[in-house]
Amino acid sequence: MNPNFCFIGAGNLATHLSKRLLNMGFSIIQVFSRTETSARTLAGVLGCSFTTVPENITPDADVYIIAISDSAFSEVLARINFHDRLVAHTSGSQPLSVLAGCSANYGVLYPLQTFSKNREVNFHTIPVFVEANNGRNEETLLHIAGKLSSTVSVCSSEKRKYLHIAAVFACNFVNHLYTVAAELLKTKDIPFDVLKPLILETALKAGELKPENAQTGPAVRYDKNIISQHLEELKSCDNYAELYELLSKSIFKHHL
Amino acid sequence: MNPNFCFIGAGNLATHLSKRLLNMGFSIIQVFSRTETSARTLAGVLGCSFTTVPENITPDADVYIIAISDSAFSEVLARINFHDRLVAHTSGSQPLSVLAGCSANYGVLYPLQTFSKNREVNFHTIPVFVEANNGRNEETLLHIAGKLSSTVSVCSSEKRKYLHIAAVFACNFVNHLYTVAAELLKTKDIPFDVLKPLILETALKAGELKPENAQTGPAVRYDKNIISQHLEELKSCDNYAELYELLSKSIFKHHL
Repeated sequence: MNPNFCFIGAGNLATHLSKRLLNMGFSIIQVFSRTETSARTLAGVLGCSFTTVPENITPDADVYIIAISDSAFSEVLARINFHDRLVAHTSGSQPLSVLAGCSANYGVLYPLQTFSKNREVNFHTIPVFVEANNGRNEETLLHIAGKLSSTVSVCSSEKRKYLHIAAVFACNFVNHLYTVAAELLKTKDIPFDVLKPLILETALKAGELKPENAQTGPAVRYDKNIISQHLEELKSCDNYAELYELLSKSIFKHHL
Repeated sequence: MNPNFCFIGAGNLATHLSKRLLNMGFSIIQVFSRTETSARTLAGVLGCSFTTVPENITPDADVYIIAISDSAFSEVLARINFHDRLVAHTSGSQPLSVLAGCSANYGVLYPLQTFSKNREVNFHTIPVFVEANNGRNEETLLHIAGKLSSTVSVCSSEKRKYLHIAAVFACNFVNHLYTVAAELLKTKDIPFDVLKPLILETALKAGELKPENAQTGPAVRYDKNIISQHLEELKSCDNYAELYELLSKSIFKHHL
């Protein structure tokens, strides 16, 4: 029988994950968040109850999914009695062992994706990485993950940490570079939309050719003339010259 | 009547652009490149003649397209007699005026895209930016650009320079971050493919939500615990810790 769930956290990841579970036929019985609006909103979407008090979290869930920011982890978890039910966190950076004191049954269910409000994602294609404190819990989490996605694997805490760091580079830092590009264009009243085909092609190309083979631009050949022109333009723009220089040197070094 | 073309350069951009022109019904009559293999290969694809000697470039083309690296510009151009035909370069960084000594008729045709060997691109969606030394040449280049793409506009040298810098951030630097991510995963025997859905979603999301609204990850909230864990892991990996730190600080500053 399918387990039912309690969600600890009501942010972007909790929202997307709980909705996907509901769509795949699982029951969500309660949402906890310290922020009442978030808890109420998500519970409304899922059609379940909510609480903002850790001590009022239901003892009746089969699986508790922890989807709160890493910095809130220890404080929130210390106040919840999980009655030795299965507790799984969803963090890239937290080791499995962080849950050892919470329950006799614990694991990790890590979907490698970026989640934002107001944007649907195709969960089916998201790689989901599972880890657990014993074979039975691993099996349960693999069963759940398999309903969420077509790409599921068991992954150690050590490997997961590297997945997370790689994701910070390939997603968070990449998005920041998009932001810098958008701001540069804005200074000349050029809409960000002109970059969309370039951004999409860069993403698709890296997937197909491997990124080291897809590198183009003035930094690969360290074209000093262009680079110094660009640095000159950027010197009044916040820390952009510094970013430009470090990234250009890094590219050049990698392609020597 | 449609003009015919001579291509100065036979690299990635020259290859993609000349093939597109040919497909849209234009004639390419000659390819010049200092590298014989490149000249011969592209001429073979286009079914035209080639030369490696600037002095042997045909006087019979209506339009000469300059698609060589910025660093080779002045040396190559000084050796060619364009007989006052229309000469257009394709560089983001070179001003229109760089062609002033070459011909009485000159302009710029700048496609904002990254071109690699062995990868077809959909030219129809690529924004093409045009500039010329007079209205008649601008009209000719707009006509040509309009056959290549559905998104064509007139753009000054100054704005084009910013388009290029923005493209360096949104494409060249982004691709380098993909490379770093790939190398980090490789150290743990994790295939780069697991990042594909994340990379694609990050690209699509920035286009839809605006990148400043799409920023996620530990740096936005400057989660010191996670950041210092990641820096610790990265300290033996080349310059990755330095990149990580500068980018994280930059993200945090932008989202204060």
